[in-house]
Amino acid sequence: MQNFEFYNPTRVFFGKGQIEQLDGLVPSDAKVMVLLGGNSARATGTLDEVKAALKQRDVVEFNGIEPNPTYETLMEAVAAVKASNVDFLLAVGGGSVIDGTKFVAAAALYDGDAWDIMTSFGAKVQAAMPFGTVLTLPATGSEMNKGSVVTRKSLKSKLPFMSNHTFPQFSVLDPTKTYTLPARQIANGVVDAFVHTTEQYLTYPVNAAVQDRYAEGLLQTLIEQGPQAMATPEDYEIRANIMWAATSALNGTIGAGVPQDWATHMIGHELTALHDIDHARTLAIVLPSLLRHTKETKKAKLVQYAERVWGIKTGSDDEKVDAAINQTQDFFESLGIRTRLKDYGIGESDIDALLSQLGKHGMVALGEHQSIDLESSRKILLGAR
Amino acid sequence: MQNFEFYNPTRVFFGKGQIEQLDGLVPSDAKVMVLLGGNSARATGTLDEVKAALKQRDVVEFNGIEPNPTYETLMEAVAAVKASNVDFLLAVGGGSVIDGTKFVAAAALYDGDAWDIMTSFGAKVQAAMPFGTVLTLPATGSEMNKGSVVTRKSLKSKLPFMSNHTFPQFSVLDPTKTYTLPARQIANGVVDAFVHTTEQYLTYPVNAAVQDRYAEGLLQTLIEQGPQAMATPEDYEIRANIMWAATSALNGTIGAGVPQDWATHMIGHELTALHDIDHARTLAIVLPSLLRHTKETKKAKLVQYAERVWGIKTGSDDEKVDAAINQTQDFFESLGIRTRLKDYGIGESDIDALLSQLGKHGMVALGEHQSIDLESSRKILLGAR
Repeated sequence: MQNFEFYNPTRVFFGKGQIEQLDGLVPSDAKVMVLLGGNSARATGTLDEVKAALKQRDVVEFNGIEPNPTYETLMEAVAAVKASNVDFLLAVGGGSVIDGTKFVAAAALYDGDAWDIMTSFGAKVQAAMPFGTVLTLPATGSEMNKGSVVTRKSLKSKLPFMSNHTFPQFSVLDPTKTYTLPARQIANGVVDAFVHTTEQYLTYPVNAAVQDRYAEGLLQTLIEQGPQAMATPEDYEIRANIMWAATSALNGTIGAGVPQDWATHMIGHELTALHDIDHARTLAIVLPSLLRHTKETKKAKLVQYAERVWGIKTGSDDEKVDAAINQTQDFFESLGIRTRLKDYGIGESDIDALLSQLGKHGMVALGEHQSIDLESSRKILLGAR
Repeated sequence: MQNFEFYNPTRVFFGKGQIEQLDGLVPSDAKVMVLLGGNSARATGTLDEVKAALKQRDVVEFNGIEPNPTYETLMEAVAAVKASNVDFLLAVGGGSVIDGTKFVAAAALYDGDAWDIMTSFGAKVQAAMPFGTVLTLPATGSEMNKGSVVTRKSLKSKLPFMSNHTFPQFSVLDPTKTYTLPARQIANGVVDAFVHTTEQYLTYPVNAAVQDRYAEGLLQTLIEQGPQAMATPEDYEIRANIMWAATSALNGTIGAGVPQDWATHMIGHELTALHDIDHARTLAIVLPSLLRHTKETKKAKLVQYAERVWGIKTGSDDEKVDAAINQTQDFFESLGIRTRLKDYGIGESDIDALLSQLGKHGMVALGEHQSIDLESSRKILLGAR
């Protein structure tokens, strides 16, 4: 096991009816800005439920945070915060709304050009406004971590930042709020959580027994319950397990003391920025090809993955690894998520532009060994055609 | 899954050399009381290392917190805190020193009879002094939770309390500090962590998929690595895994959203209070008999435990359950921990006094169904002869 620091002060309220906890969580004299994505929180009644729970508090809304939240939109929210006396932010939505709210919380108190927050990967954040979240879409884990990803449209740049100042104070997770999600979003959420887990698990062994078992448990849960979540949308227990698995995949627990990869995410971000593909779908495209490209350096963990997660006990190590990667790709396809660039109309001629963006963002030494240079990224993308 | 709240703000620094982090964690102008158990932190050099890391800070020591820390001793520490201008507490030791420090932190600021803290199970705690811990003995998980168990010798009462005010601000976990522990203490720690896990896992199913997989991962880790930890005391990786498994077993993660038992602990506490048996040994005595006594109501989880943790795939459900309980008991014995009352000189004639203490402490409806009354406790104790 590697040395680590673990810290996660977010308070989670999980279950049916937990939105009513907001009254005890938001200061009673707060002026609250509720940040929202599209229209779904309004259409489903979740927004009304949130406002009812906030009781006498003065509430303003900021609507229109996009999937892959943009700097351009978020800076409008920052301006609205500064123009008012809002002193508490409440994200109501999925990972994009929560990521966006983290940026707003930090940018509202940042002295200087707020894009510095992104180019410093969060290192320049010295403070942030207090905020909480009401999660409606299980996927990113943003509701219980300090990270955020923001896209600057004008630069076609999608970058992550992290700061100890941008943990939500609390997050409310009510699985019934996921009942109305389109199947596409549930599938995306399952794949997102799955790949968050593999980024922290499929590297090289450091004998971190607990973290490995936990990661395997999350993958097994997603494999078992992901298809059920799509088949029976109003099965509370299944939705609860998917929701908690997604949060658990990126709350720091499985990543403590182990090497981490994240190359799939960094390459995937460029696919979203240039081709507007759903985040989870970019991961489903990149991961199988990346695992095939790196299977020699990842072999020990891939064999463990094959045996423990997929129950593949026979064959040579190479056969186990190949079977596990194929089953992973088949699992994504079984959820209705296509895993080839060509399924999204992307061909070999598009790869140079993707590599150019990776270069521009400094993504030239990715992976747990920092060995995925632009030439490796090219091979991974070629392998994903 | 049941509704739950999860909150754990303790900052963990894990690994070799992490004691030097203390300088950044304790306020630079703090007057620090270091709380200690016996002589081991002094003898092994850990205390010197702690003092060196605390640099210029004014440090006083409080020595002599016992295994099963007593109210009587802890009130001396409270008096010493009040008589000085100590404003930060630092526990250096195992779970007893940390539990004791939690009580001191709360009692020093409590207005009234400090024993109220115990009889209210912590409900009356409104504030506590800030404190951190340097863990030297992996077992109780106290380093990353808000609970504590204190014994009042004069009453032969051993009671737990919990409060959101008594989370350590930070805990330093350096596995090398466990190298010098006697084998007996490592064995106790493995059993303690094991039974913490079963208390939160061996109840009835609520389809909490992640929590179940996590609990099974902890049990598998303890079964695999516990014997190795005793055989090769200076194997860093094994000691690291045992240490992190013990912390993870009681930091709230596996217990969120699931029913919990804790009857083994409550019955075990009386064995310690009346007969001075090591805490972990009381658990090893009570658990197998309790599982046999409650196997009908716990059957579904016991079958899952047999299959997933012990790999018992053949036979009827009853045969699987019986085999799993036997293997559990054998596992404890294999660590050198005796599992029968008679091994500790306790016979049938001692049982009435134990039941009388359980009654006195209100422990008359124990377990996840509150169905273990004094008659059931009698049968469990009779079964453990």
